[in-house]
Amino acid sequence: MQELNIIKIGGNILDNPTQLHRFLSDFASVSGAKILVHGGGKIASSIGQRLGITPKMVEGRRITDAETLELVTMVYGGLINKQVVAQLQALGCNAIGMTGADGNAIYAQKRPVREVDYGYAGDVAGSKNINAATIQGLLSLDLTPVFAPLTHDGDGSMLNTNADTIASVLATALAPHYEVKLFYCFEKMGVLQDAEDDNSVIPEINKTLYKELKDTGVVSLGMIPKLDNAFAALEQGVRAVQIGDAAAVSRMAAGGKAGTLITL
Amino acid sequence: MQELNIIKIGGNILDNPTQLHRFLSDFASVSGAKILVHGGGKIASSIGQRLGITPKMVEGRRITDAETLELVTMVYGGLINKQVVAQLQALGCNAIGMTGADGNAIYAQKRPVREVDYGYAGDVAGSKNINAATIQGLLSLDLTPVFAPLTHDGDGSMLNTNADTIASVLATALAPHYEVKLFYCFEKMGVLQDAEDDNSVIPEINKTLYKELKDTGVVSLGMIPKLDNAFAALEQGVRAVQIGDAAAVSRMAAGGKAGTLITL
Repeated sequence: MQELNIIKIGGNILDNPTQLHRFLSDFASVSGAKILVHGGGKIASSIGQRLGITPKMVEGRRITDAETLELVTMVYGGLINKQVVAQLQALGCNAIGMTGADGNAIYAQKRPVREVDYGYAGDVAGSKNINAATIQGLLSLDLTPVFAPLTHDGDGSMLNTNADTIASVLATALAPHYEVKLFYCFEKMGVLQDAEDDNSVIPEINKTLYKELKDTGVVSLGMIPKLDNAFAALEQGVRAVQIGDAAAVSRMAAGGKAGTLITL
Repeated sequence: MQELNIIKIGGNILDNPTQLHRFLSDFASVSGAKILVHGGGKIASSIGQRLGITPKMVEGRRITDAETLELVTMVYGGLINKQVVAQLQALGCNAIGMTGADGNAIYAQKRPVREVDYGYAGDVAGSKNINAATIQGLLSLDLTPVFAPLTHDGDGSMLNTNADTIASVLATALAPHYEVKLFYCFEKMGVLQDAEDDNSVIPEINKTLYKELKDTGVVSLGMIPKLDNAFAALEQGVRAVQIGDAAAVSRMAAGGKAGTLITL
């Protein structure tokens, strides 16, 4: 089976033009089929502020009301996505910007209102909501899909969706067709034993160790959904999941060790 | 040869949600290969105003300084483009949002500074700057490309490009591969003999008549680039060019008469 690298970058890289350019240059040099998934970044909040849109957060999650949906559709799907695509084109990578609406690539459900109304937040039920054929078609044209963290509801509305989730469901849906490696890039060198010590990267985490780390509070609240997504992906046939910083991408893609390897 | 309908809509339709929905529903029902090209609309100016960006115009053209480029990249490439794509998906049309950067579809040159510095405005030198193979690839996947009025310079920057020009160069570049029909939708029923009389649609304009209409001042300043683009497209192999209102699209696509037919 052909290899497919799916790489997710977060806001910290997007917010720093120099780091972003260095990362994109590493990404462009990754050979073979690849997909980039990007998050949001502070720019959405700062543009929102200038527009008079106050960020609404509950338990670290953005509440996506109608005006926030417009904001993230503009900033994630337009500004960030197209700037990344244009830069990748300049680096010789034939990128194509995508959201879940484009080619009906990722269909999501508006999160049901329970205690909290998350507004236009989209939950992806699983790989059945990914249009794998379209993505395979794009890859077969030697295009590199670049996904913004947006999906659609099939009824004409965009939805705000977590970028980690998008990376994970893409990996799962494409696992039957490619040997998928999934990389989560974030601001740390990997999952740390000691949050204060950048040199305390845990080289490998399996399910047993993950339970221990959660029980002892070593992994933080922000890390848990990332790791949950990683295990979910592995359980559904993804070959490898790695977590590390952006600089590790070229090493990881070349098969070298970097960051934390997640295994079942 | 397979037929390909390329339809361009302007700001007036985009600014009116009811009209837009009606148009998209007509567009979705057009059978066979098709491409939608959309313009900007007032929403860019109104969001720009809220962001404190003052529109800068010279001779009816927007001057695209750095902050205006960010604005149009967000609004045209994000907000408008994705809303149109999501609505088309809901109507059963497998749309994929595009700018010139995506798949390197349309490469442009930053307009040289002469008397006026237009900033990040992109001029497309001709059909050689269109990556026809990528667009054919997307069409062969039964996707419907939806183009925002943006291109890129190949050096990592997006550029603001007139939507009429984009429609026209796409038509020209694809003319060797498809029987291309190009429709320009705007607020009038067609090119009018008398600007005050909506019933004075000129059914057909050829080059001779066009010269007369220009000499006698019948065609307005805003109409001239549209007609120039139309003739340029016909001279390069486009089968038919028609200009009319959005409601005419379903009639025109079905082969009926509507609006003004431009011929050589």
